[in-house]
Amino acid sequence: MSVDTTQVTEVSQAGSAVLKRAQIECDPLLRKAIGSLPEPLATMGGYHFGWWDANRCDAPGAPGKSIRAALVFGVARACGNGGDAMPAAAAVELIHNFTLLHDDVMDGDSTRRGRATVWRVWGVNNAILLGDALHALAMRILTESLRDTVAVDAIARLEQTCLDLCVGQQEDCSFERSTNITVPDYLRMAAGKTAVLMGCACALGALSAGADAATVAAMERFGYELGLAFQIVDDLIGIWGDPAATGKPAGNDLARRKATLPIVVALNADGESAAELAKLYQSDHAMSASEVLHAAELVEAAGGKQAAHRYADERMHAALTALPESMRSGELVALAQLVTGRDK
Amino acid sequence: MSVDTTQVTEVSQAGSAVLKRAQIECDPLLRKAIGSLPEPLATMGGYHFGWWDANRCDAPGAPGKSIRAALVFGVARACGNGGDAMPAAAAVELIHNFTLLHDDVMDGDSTRRGRATVWRVWGVNNAILLGDALHALAMRILTESLRDTVAVDAIARLEQTCLDLCVGQQEDCSFERSTNITVPDYLRMAAGKTAVLMGCACALGALSAGADAATVAAMERFGYELGLAFQIVDDLIGIWGDPAATGKPAGNDLARRKATLPIVVALNADGESAAELAKLYQSDHAMSASEVLHAAELVEAAGGKQAAHRYADERMHAALTALPESMRSGELVALAQLVTGRDK
Repeated sequence: MSVDTTQVTEVSQAGSAVLKRAQIECDPLLRKAIGSLPEPLATMGGYHFGWWDANRCDAPGAPGKSIRAALVFGVARACGNGGDAMPAAAAVELIHNFTLLHDDVMDGDSTRRGRATVWRVWGVNNAILLGDALHALAMRILTESLRDTVAVDAIARLEQTCLDLCVGQQEDCSFERSTNITVPDYLRMAAGKTAVLMGCACALGALSAGADAATVAAMERFGYELGLAFQIVDDLIGIWGDPAATGKPAGNDLARRKATLPIVVALNADGESAAELAKLYQSDHAMSASEVLHAAELVEAAGGKQAAHRYADERMHAALTALPESMRSGELVALAQLVTGRDK
Repeated sequence: MSVDTTQVTEVSQAGSAVLKRAQIECDPLLRKAIGSLPEPLATMGGYHFGWWDANRCDAPGAPGKSIRAALVFGVARACGNGGDAMPAAAAVELIHNFTLLHDDVMDGDSTRRGRATVWRVWGVNNAILLGDALHALAMRILTESLRDTVAVDAIARLEQTCLDLCVGQQEDCSFERSTNITVPDYLRMAAGKTAVLMGCACALGALSAGADAATVAAMERFGYELGLAFQIVDDLIGIWGDPAATGKPAGNDLARRKATLPIVVALNADGESAAELAKLYQSDHAMSASEVLHAAELVEAAGGKQAAHRYADERMHAALTALPESMRSGELVALAQLVTGRDK
């Protein structure tokens, strides 16, 4: 976030190439897993992954970013063996998408990646069931593809991560409409909601490559710090992102009175802007587009935008510091830079 | 179902003692698992299991029947080693309760075991999250407590079972309000919804005891057939059960126009009763109590009750036949008889 424009473009291109490669590497196993589900679950699954439209016709949507799969592959290659990472990468993507399906139901989100969410197309019941099925598929893949000791370790880590994700989402839901969230509250929730899965992805990449315990722990730390940076950038995009790039309305998080980091910082600040923002948040009425725009200005005036950028930079720096010197590969650095440099 | 009254009482007492023992054996590990969840998930979990009321005060509800845990223990002991079965029993109960939490949301059921369901007390979001957490806890217990090879086998089986349960529930939801379900459709759905988990419970009991592959397969068959019998008895109770014993309104399944076995048989029969029932099912209006009563009479007149009793007896016989001679323990026979002799 402190690089010049030429660098941003180069970083973005390198990072995009890493993501594209991860997506291609993961695709066969994901398609096999989703294809093993009976209808209508297979059609819903492929729709959610952007492979076809709701009628299983050839009208693909935008796929997910595959950042978590890219972390698994990138870490495994940095540890000297990327060849066995596919099951872990597919499992992590399946767990991520299981949580997206359930989160969309809980948050009442109508669109994802520019299309109607699964619950909007097939109803809440099917979205719950598809999420449950992806959770099960993730673990089944790990039992099928890894040596028993590695599989047990990977499953234990991934299920602990699921528990943390549930707790993070639970806190996120309970934070909504609350005006007395502190920055530590927020960081704990963001850790549960996002950072632990990125940390787990990196740990599983290292495990797949047969790395020792110290390397697995270092890689987990790298992913965890990167995950915090990722969530904070997500928060910045949730207020100031371009709807054309994000596929979501401008200022979406403000309109929903969410407690993201820029907002939490602003609400905890002193001064008139903070007070006015708090008043807006305490009221019950649906915000107009101009009120949303004004709220974004208040968050910035109260220092929320600048503080969030600073936090993201700090977490990004902590992530790169956690990487063992010999494993600071171009691929992982490109991924880390992409996380903080992205616009969607 | 073809035994005299004295026998029913004896069978019921023996079966109840087996269930009570399983519940006591399972309890410490279940409490430890639920207790490891942060609040408010731990309170919700203990409420769902009947350990306390919604304020975590000492007002326990009726616990679940623990039939699946009892099958794990019973099979493990029949295989000569019940001592290592606790993790598998707890995992199976956690998976069962994860599906109950999500099914209650999907089916809109307001009460379970005579109390308000978790989604009614804490909302749909929390019920989804608690279900997801129990799914993760189940697998974590298996990774913590079993030898790696046994854990991987157990997890693979239990996750495949989760997938089958999702498919069964999906079919069950899609069957509702449909009048052209055939008996084979129904049996496939019932297998997915209930029989596979009982089959898996028995397979995991055998695995925990270190049984050979043929014994594991035989025990899985025993549990699967018993599970079909269990579901059909559930269907009979869902129409003719005593509300005082079941905690559900009389004729509940008819009022909701569900497609349970007695009803499917009746709707597929010839004659006036079948035609009248089909007409009632095709209409949209909420049935009155007297219409529900009349619908039950129509199902019986069209042969649905008798046929369901016969199917349940057949499945029960198939279950006992699947048991290897040397492993036909009093405990397993008592459990099998309890399944078909129960009234709730």
